[in-house]
Amino acid sequence: MRIGIADTTFARVDMAKFAIDAIKKNSDAKIVRYTVPGFKDLPVACKKLIEEDKCDIAIALGMAGPKPIDKQCAHEASLGLQNVQLMTNKHILEVFVHMDEAKKEKEIYEIAKNRAEKHALNALALLKGKTELTRYAGMGRRQGKEDEGQIKV
Amino acid sequence: MRIGIADTTFARVDMAKFAIDAIKKNSDAKIVRYTVPGFKDLPVACKKLIEEDKCDIAIALGMAGPKPIDKQCAHEASLGLQNVQLMTNKHILEVFVHMDEAKKEKEIYEIAKNRAEKHALNALALLKGKTELTRYAGMGRRQGKEDEGQIKV
Amino acid sequence: MRIGIADTTFARVDMAKFAIDAIKKNSDAKIVRYTVPGFKDLPVACKKLIEEDKCDIAIALGMAGPKPIDKQCAHEASLGLQNVQLMTNKHILEVFVHMDEAKKEKEIYEIAKNRAEKHALNALALLKGKTELTRYAGMGRRQGKEDEGQIKV
Amino acid sequence: MRIGIADTTFARVDMAKFAIDAIKKNSDAKIVRYTVPGFKDLPVACKKLIEEDKCDIAIALGMAGPKPIDKQCAHEASLGLQNVQLMTNKHILEVFVHMDEAKKEKEIYEIAKNRAEKHALNALALLKGKTELTRYAGMGRRQGKEDEGQIKV
Amino acid sequence: MRIGIADTTFARVDMAKFAIDAIKKNSDAKIVRYTVPGFKDLPVACKKLIEEDKCDIAIALGMAGPKPIDKQCAHEASLGLQNVQLMTNKHILEVFVHMDEAKKEKEIYEIAKNRAEKHALNALALLKGKTELTRYAGMGRRQGKEDEGQIKV
Repeated sequence: MRIGIADTTFARVDMAKFAIDAIKKNSDAKIVRYTVPGFKDLPVACKKLIEEDKCDIAIALGMAGPKPIDKQCAHEASLGLQNVQLMTNKHILEVFVHMDEAKKEKEIYEIAKNRAEKHALNALALLKGKTELTRYAGMGRRQGKEDEGQIKV
Repeated sequence: MRIGIADTTFARVDMAKFAIDAIKKNSDAKIVRYTVPGFKDLPVACKKLIEEDKCDIAIALGMAGPKPIDKQCAHEASLGLQNVQLMTNKHILEVFVHMDEAKKEKEIYEIAKNRAEKHALNALALLKGKTELTRYAGMGRRQGKEDEGQIKV
Repeated sequence: MRIGIADTTFARVDMAKFAIDAIKKNSDAKIVRYTVPGFKDLPVACKKLIEEDKCDIAIALGMAGPKPIDKQCAHEASLGLQNVQLMTNKHILEVFVHMDEAKKEKEIYEIAKNRAEKHALNALALLKGKTELTRYAGMGRRQGKEDEGQIKV
Repeated sequence: MRIGIADTTFARVDMAKFAIDAIKKNSDAKIVRYTVPGFKDLPVACKKLIEEDKCDIAIALGMAGPKPIDKQCAHEASLGLQNVQLMTNKHILEVFVHMDEAKKEKEIYEIAKNRAEKHALNALALLKGKTELTRYAGMGRRQGKEDEGQIKV
Repeated sequence: MRIGIADTTFARVDMAKFAIDAIKKNSDAKIVRYTVPGFKDLPVACKKLIEEDKCDIAIALGMAGPKPIDKQCAHEASLGLQNVQLMTNKHILEVFVHMDEAKKEKEIYEIAKNRAEKHALNALALLKGKTELTRYAGMGRRQGKEDEGQIKV
């Protein structure tokens, strides 16, 4: 199995490192990394990882600024990632951190680490099959923060 | 007939269960389930259900958070689902619940259950033919809440 | 000539009826109807009408709720309809009514009727050729309400 | 050379006339016109002008209402026009006038005339080659109003 | 190596000049320039640079006005650029400057110059390979202003 890791120089945390460590600790999948300037460069990077490097899945790691225009740019990157998935029939786990998710830099760092690690494990699960995550269906799982859990009635 | 059911670990209610129960009670269609982390992972999951598992229709079940960024993410997932339908010429019933549709968790649960069940029946109707639902055209039907009914003049 | 009519059970007015009546009164085109749950199901329905039922043009009739999320959903449906037109090189007349276009239900009904009828005639005109509507170019025509007319200088 | 002119019956000014006059005065290109109801019908009209009528470039002329929903519709039309250009590798000059660009109808008329004429000349320039407009690069040119000019430092 | 440079007559700064100077100073890549009226014309221009002129990468330089409708237009151009990248598997560095990024014209000029130069260097780096920028991953690099740097914990 080959896992593509696309990340950016724009991000203020080396998110790819967390994802790579989590993958290495839990599998012997081959990792191919691709670093681009910003998150708008991630979709074509992921497409190239899948098509040129034969990756079976990709993880796209990026960080978005706090302004409205940054949300718009994140939206464009996300739509690009959607399209790549549909063009290749491969999953791309989107690991985006928004700079307004927390006030302190340390918290941003923790969110980035937690989200990158958990989505790396999600990638490994998706590679195992369509029902590997079914045991957690509707369980309110979160990446980047604590799980919210299932609604009890 | 084969019906694909794509759901998420992010949702706080096991919406797929309601859809599956409704389908089993009303048909002997074969069900193929695919659980992914969040609703942005649903479009490619549905495409794989249709193309790899030969599903004739799919139901995409997801739950969206209450913040503006969550609406944006739901928008991206919805656009992806639109594209999959146009790439495959198959319907995908989108069963999304927004966490701000109700204040109490119990109500969210009820909306999720009602919407999942009704759209499961819609899927069965669409499989029967283009005019199966025509008797209800313009009748103000709703999923997740009570029908609004036809405007009387 | 074959005209596809796609409508929904969500709408609170049987808009298709008005369109069909207007077509029958003014042409002997064959009509193929397809009723789906909501307006997000219209794009693939129109694509199937064009590709499977060989329709030369389609009319997509839907009604949108008054909330911001409803506008977002209408946007998704509209983008889907755009894509279908570009994939098939066929026109799809979009006949959407927004529930906040008027306060009284009777007015909504009148807008729906007027818009459906006028766009049915537009569909017939487009089937005749590229310059059939040129006599009305820049004339401020409206569907669902009175024409605004040309700006006089 | 063949130039497609797509316009609408919704617009309140016959914008196509201005574009056609400007083209005729400055070239002997063949003009093919296509009039549709509203600007959402322009993308497929332009695609048909390019593919069916072998136009080398197209000009899409439309007018948008002043409300938020009108902006959303213009956005959908613009995205459609983007897609047509990428599907055909031909330029489409988008000449949209928003009814809130000016308060007086006479001003709207002047904006429409100026923008249509200038973009007609832009179309002629683009047909001449990739560097025909390079002499004006970064010069702050505007269509519909006066040029803003280059920033002097 | 061939680098496409697409720019506009709308911009108020000759941004292409900065990018071209930076490329010439740091490589002997062949440059192909394409000037179009506005940034909505950039996507198809870039596609033509890549497909017709065999460019290996492109840089799209544009300037956006300060109003909400200008943001919407920038969004449309950006989505078009995303699509071109996915259709061609080539990177396009988007160098957009928004007129509301600074109050003084001189500052806009400086942002435009800095962003164009830095992204020209990014283009050269991307042409070298997937890990050429990895040494800067997560380093908080910025174009158009000072780097924000890595979050220290």
